[in-house]
Amino acid sequence: MAKLKDVKKVVLAYSGGLDTSIILKWLQTELGAEVVTFTADLGQGDSDLEPARKKAEMMGAKQIYIEDVREEFVRDFVFPMFRANAEYEGLYLLGTSIARPLISKRLVEIARETGADAVAHGATGKGNDQVRFELSAYALNPDIKVIAPWRDWSFKSRTDLLDFAEKHQIPIAKDKRGDAPFSVDANLLHSSSEGKVLEDPWVEPPEFVHQRTISPMDAPDAVTEIEIEFLKGDPIALNGKALSPAAMLAALNDLGRDNGIGRLDLVENRFVGMKSRGVYETPGGTVLLQAHRGIESITLDRGAAHLKDELMPRYAELIYNGFWFSPERLMLQALIDKSQEDVEGTVRLKLYKGNAIVSGRKSKKSLYRNDLVTFEDDRGAYDQKDAEGFIRLNALRLRTLAARNRGN
Amino acid sequence: MAKLKDVKKVVLAYSGGLDTSIILKWLQTELGAEVVTFTADLGQGDSDLEPARKKAEMMGAKQIYIEDVREEFVRDFVFPMFRANAEYEGLYLLGTSIARPLISKRLVEIARETGADAVAHGATGKGNDQVRFELSAYALNPDIKVIAPWRDWSFKSRTDLLDFAEKHQIPIAKDKRGDAPFSVDANLLHSSSEGKVLEDPWVEPPEFVHQRTISPMDAPDAVTEIEIEFLKGDPIALNGKALSPAAMLAALNDLGRDNGIGRLDLVENRFVGMKSRGVYETPGGTVLLQAHRGIESITLDRGAAHLKDELMPRYAELIYNGFWFSPERLMLQALIDKSQEDVEGTVRLKLYKGNAIVSGRKSKKSLYRNDLVTFEDDRGAYDQKDAEGFIRLNALRLRTLAARNRGN
Amino acid sequence: MAKLKDVKKVVLAYSGGLDTSIILKWLQTELGAEVVTFTADLGQGDSDLEPARKKAEMMGAKQIYIEDVREEFVRDFVFPMFRANAEYEGLYLLGTSIARPLISKRLVEIARETGADAVAHGATGKGNDQVRFELSAYALNPDIKVIAPWRDWSFKSRTDLLDFAEKHQIPIAKDKRGDAPFSVDANLLHSSSEGKVLEDPWVEPPEFVHQRTISPMDAPDAVTEIEIEFLKGDPIALNGKALSPAAMLAALNDLGRDNGIGRLDLVENRFVGMKSRGVYETPGGTVLLQAHRGIESITLDRGAAHLKDELMPRYAELIYNGFWFSPERLMLQALIDKSQEDVEGTVRLKLYKGNAIVSGRKSKKSLYRNDLVTFEDDRGAYDQKDAEGFIRLNALRLRTLAARNRGN
Amino acid sequence: MAKLKDVKKVVLAYSGGLDTSIILKWLQTELGAEVVTFTADLGQGDSDLEPARKKAEMMGAKQIYIEDVREEFVRDFVFPMFRANAEYEGLYLLGTSIARPLISKRLVEIARETGADAVAHGATGKGNDQVRFELSAYALNPDIKVIAPWRDWSFKSRTDLLDFAEKHQIPIAKDKRGDAPFSVDANLLHSSSEGKVLEDPWVEPPEFVHQRTISPMDAPDAVTEIEIEFLKGDPIALNGKALSPAAMLAALNDLGRDNGIGRLDLVENRFVGMKSRGVYETPGGTVLLQAHRGIESITLDRGAAHLKDELMPRYAELIYNGFWFSPERLMLQALIDKSQEDVEGTVRLKLYKGNAIVSGRKSKKSLYRNDLVTFEDDRGAYDQKDAEGFIRLNALRLRTLAARNRGN
Repeated sequence: MAKLKDVKKVVLAYSGGLDTSIILKWLQTELGAEVVTFTADLGQGDSDLEPARKKAEMMGAKQIYIEDVREEFVRDFVFPMFRANAEYEGLYLLGTSIARPLISKRLVEIARETGADAVAHGATGKGNDQVRFELSAYALNPDIKVIAPWRDWSFKSRTDLLDFAEKHQIPIAKDKRGDAPFSVDANLLHSSSEGKVLEDPWVEPPEFVHQRTISPMDAPDAVTEIEIEFLKGDPIALNGKALSPAAMLAALNDLGRDNGIGRLDLVENRFVGMKSRGVYETPGGTVLLQAHRGIESITLDRGAAHLKDELMPRYAELIYNGFWFSPERLMLQALIDKSQEDVEGTVRLKLYKGNAIVSGRKSKKSLYRNDLVTFEDDRGAYDQKDAEGFIRLNALRLRTLAARNRGN
Repeated sequence: MAKLKDVKKVVLAYSGGLDTSIILKWLQTELGAEVVTFTADLGQGDSDLEPARKKAEMMGAKQIYIEDVREEFVRDFVFPMFRANAEYEGLYLLGTSIARPLISKRLVEIARETGADAVAHGATGKGNDQVRFELSAYALNPDIKVIAPWRDWSFKSRTDLLDFAEKHQIPIAKDKRGDAPFSVDANLLHSSSEGKVLEDPWVEPPEFVHQRTISPMDAPDAVTEIEIEFLKGDPIALNGKALSPAAMLAALNDLGRDNGIGRLDLVENRFVGMKSRGVYETPGGTVLLQAHRGIESITLDRGAAHLKDELMPRYAELIYNGFWFSPERLMLQALIDKSQEDVEGTVRLKLYKGNAIVSGRKSKKSLYRNDLVTFEDDRGAYDQKDAEGFIRLNALRLRTLAARNRGN
Repeated sequence: MAKLKDVKKVVLAYSGGLDTSIILKWLQTELGAEVVTFTADLGQGDSDLEPARKKAEMMGAKQIYIEDVREEFVRDFVFPMFRANAEYEGLYLLGTSIARPLISKRLVEIARETGADAVAHGATGKGNDQVRFELSAYALNPDIKVIAPWRDWSFKSRTDLLDFAEKHQIPIAKDKRGDAPFSVDANLLHSSSEGKVLEDPWVEPPEFVHQRTISPMDAPDAVTEIEIEFLKGDPIALNGKALSPAAMLAALNDLGRDNGIGRLDLVENRFVGMKSRGVYETPGGTVLLQAHRGIESITLDRGAAHLKDELMPRYAELIYNGFWFSPERLMLQALIDKSQEDVEGTVRLKLYKGNAIVSGRKSKKSLYRNDLVTFEDDRGAYDQKDAEGFIRLNALRLRTLAARNRGN
Repeated sequence: MAKLKDVKKVVLAYSGGLDTSIILKWLQTELGAEVVTFTADLGQGDSDLEPARKKAEMMGAKQIYIEDVREEFVRDFVFPMFRANAEYEGLYLLGTSIARPLISKRLVEIARETGADAVAHGATGKGNDQVRFELSAYALNPDIKVIAPWRDWSFKSRTDLLDFAEKHQIPIAKDKRGDAPFSVDANLLHSSSEGKVLEDPWVEPPEFVHQRTISPMDAPDAVTEIEIEFLKGDPIALNGKALSPAAMLAALNDLGRDNGIGRLDLVENRFVGMKSRGVYETPGGTVLLQAHRGIESITLDRGAAHLKDELMPRYAELIYNGFWFSPERLMLQALIDKSQEDVEGTVRLKLYKGNAIVSGRKSKKSLYRNDLVTFEDDRGAYDQKDAEGFIRLNALRLRTLAARNRGN
């Protein structure tokens, strides 16, 4: 706390909810700091951010920033990540991880604009988000102070928090009185749920945990067929209609939600060292990943594709761990983007009760050549005799080894 | 062909079908070689291999080996591969690739037993299977001769082949007269289909191509719930009943098939250099992969899991390319097997119309600790203050870099 | 400090020097804990450890462990690491890093034997060694308490420390009165020097910093030629004479030292986030690395060798960062050890003024075949025609890509 | 050979030596093709290429291209590769490998200019160079025909070749009559020697094999100190004097040669499957590698450096195997180049009898901060308390694992 004494002005990532409102007040009262609030529309679902503005005003925020960053979020963060087919631990599409760097970037920029010497966030000391917020902030401004009230304040329990809220006349929604059954994060890419009813990994997540998708069991009996067009690895049109990045992801979300696509119940390894269990819903992202793999399958060279595949786990880990603004992420991004120059064309998918099935792909840049692969007469496109030499030289070291090993 | 002149006895991988029967005869007539046939029950579906024996006898095979290798196949090839969560190009479960080394191993062993100087297979000069057969054979016996008639003979067309068959009184099933609509491979792990009606990757595979699975659309409306128990990374019991490796995979195949699980329509990159399009059905394997990931998620340490994930694409590529018996595959297997020592416990899955959803996992060896992760009082299991130092030292190099970059 | 209050008995890694003597006394006086000392002969150069025993006795150590662990150190730590050709950041042979896990292992074992609830070390809060000590200790006993007095005590300066020493009648060697010009670590593998006169990376290290080697400029004008014999990747005989692991490393150290071999002046990246500059002397290890690469060059298959090379940086990083007892290091070790089964034979080296030059290698397990490589008649060992097919199929994807890229 | 029948005009990589002169004649007489010669000054040592021109004219070459490509070679091939610190199999600086793509590039370009339908090279069917030439050619023009006479012609022995030469009045230098004692390649980066007297890897290379360096034993007793300045990872000035890429490498070659630096006696693994033994001399490159590592050590972030180190073996393998113009090499280059943006500053080296020792490095872009690393008072630059949390969270998974493993 000593280090926080000198803080004069803080930019707070402010949702308008109870927890960040308590933080706002705590920063004012305990640190004696002026507070600037930053509330972003990342597509979390509250399209109306005016209540957050009013609440911040009411609580005496010095300046209030409210911004719709959905296009930036999808264009500069989500799509670059999907170019890599990033999946953390084989399955998780990194929906929370990818939003944090953007928020930190704006916090640091606003701090510069407003002359604030610190930024603050509402993430706890057990999770990954604190790391993501803070690594990003430090990478963008090495002198910024970062305040994480959940690690610093003296409240011992939820009751302490609510008492503080009451004492400072912070409105408390009725359903916040009892313990929430689980914790939620959401943005245009996904929603996540953790804790409480999800804490035993043997117990199936209850249906009410899900927010972005209907159950596959409740999805329509009919198949929905769609076509996605790509350019330089990014989706640019849906069923023939050009869409902006955020509009594209929103449309895919609707399609995914309606067909029960994109649920994930995962036990994962946090950067801070423990395993946790989360339920993720990434409807549009799940469709997009399949589609992107589909268009890559005909337009990406094998050497490029395999190199990407081998580096993907590292890339995903970097994002998960909060290293979006690290040199190594930027280096990998340069490598990935280089590979996407000709990843263009159209993919057709069938959406059906939890399944997003690629059923066709075509491209002017296709590397698929039927004359090479056909069982029919290939008119000399491929000389089968070549295979013998290819195999014999690939085998040469193995034969040398086998001869050595039997004592030849 | 010159090199083949001296061949005296050949062990042929013999299915009993038309193509390998033509090869049998060609080896006898064109090379003047004695032929030993090897027919394996790999679970391809013809549980009765007696017709193959009769046909081989009729055609004058010198010795006839017919063997049920299903347990060996699953125990020593399929399960070790699934310990790695191997997926080629992110999606393909390597069903064909993993069977070839076993066949080559038996061909080479039988050659030793029978004094044969060559082995022969029926794979074409365009595919991966020739590579897999031959690399395996050479790795096991550096002096073996390998005959690949499809590359060596002078037949120019299917008509030539059929003429040769008729001339030598090889029975031709009626449906083989016309061109087959596609080419098929099958074993206990999967079936694959290629060619003809599948040659245009924009055209959806017709339903009749599928052999091992019903369509998700045709699967039951009810969820099937199962539990799989693991030991050392391998499944050992299904719904509480211990099963041998082959019996386990067969049972999972039935469950997968009935629920429309395990179809894949993929454009992939062959080792010989072209892209090809295949339809794969791996019902049991698809369920097994999800279950294995599920049990690993609670029993495998993060460092172990991430190292495995990073090496998996390489491992899968080695198997796909035919390097099962290479030192590098054995080295990776040693690494993977080391990781699986405590991968044990039970996974519950819901099977539903194409989906294999992990809905619970438990283990005596679980590394999931609710006391660490809980939002409630953790009684000192985790000190949130630790996170500050953790983040600050992880950030140190990024801050140094940021200061440098702005000219400090 | 609060957490340290309950500590009753501590096992201290004790060198007998001033700093760890101050720590011994501080643990007794400030924590009120009983202290057990552990002093290891790792080959640091003080072959007589009796003074450390007397000093510990004099200062009231409860129990005193003094052990010669040189054979264990080289056999179970150094040699396994050299099987991997491990070099951190391309150059550093990890001499300090590899000793820490062994010390921690003994500390934890002695804690168990003596009923101690904590271990303590004398590493500072800025370096890597604290991390290595503590990660190893926690990995071996999750409940052990680790005390790092340099991070915990209230001394602000070297003067404070010396005052404390005088107050408690701890003998202070005269040359410790002033600031030491640099900090030193040593064991049978290497010595390292850091700090003070080395702090400016533009300034060349003064000659007096070096402790284990003479300067190349001072080394003999004549070449020293040696032969090292390997078995399973480890050196077992020198110039025809079988030597134990520690005797082997000691003998190579003598040879290296006398020929000015093994100096390294490096700016490296610490795990805790900053760059530091060190001068390392690894005379025997430098010779050993070259020799090991030499014997691998004729006995290791390409696939095995390249896989090892690709994983080496990760392996070295794990050791540098203190993760010797992590699952991922053990997995990599399993992979590496698998590769070394046939790494045997003899390497001849010329040692000369800083150079350790491999001038010959031979092995019964050699994979080098002159019949394959000769420009002369190879009697059919290699068919140059095979190369055409090999190249054409390796080129196929590149040609397909080139055709696509020009718009074909 | 059939495939070569239609070749009308060939661009030949022509050295002016006996072998490529025989090839020139063979292409004219056996294929009936017009021949265009391309002779490049890559710094191989024959600065006067006029004799090659006269010889080509005399032999009836249709067109003659003679070009000094040294600057392009160093700027666009050598320096980009050194940004990666590329070493094949840990030691080889790829001097031959890196020259082949440039030659192929010019062959293909000249083929386009002259309307030739084929290119030809003088590499044998056993080596790597054929692969490098041909992969590069195919990657740049998928329809080009590549003629490798050593694989195609019917000569059985050196005598046959010499008879052909005599018959066609090709001048034969006297020393070519007997077998050359070894085979040589050279360019501005290195020279290599293979075969004959080098074929037994136990026998030390005779001194006369070396062409670019004096022996360390013959080098001056005095140290030569130099300073190299870097910008964006490339050397731009030597001892304060700006030099073009080729001039820089030539100057470093002189310095290396005079100090006995850059010899390597290596058994390596060829792409075509066998081991071979080569003697390489890379005097300037060896100095450059050390210098580049030196400047990176203070200017490159740890995350960037370690990622580079892990990918380097793959990158080096790609170049060795001939995949310079592959998408994956280009992707890796994008990653590497991204890392080099701030790799600038000055390195001081001591050159002495085979040693190239970095003795100082400085940079305006340095990331080395003495305030962080000092043992003295750091005025708050680093809080040692942070290390505790850092270690505890890094240890958390290891402790969880240890508790699990002992049955907690």
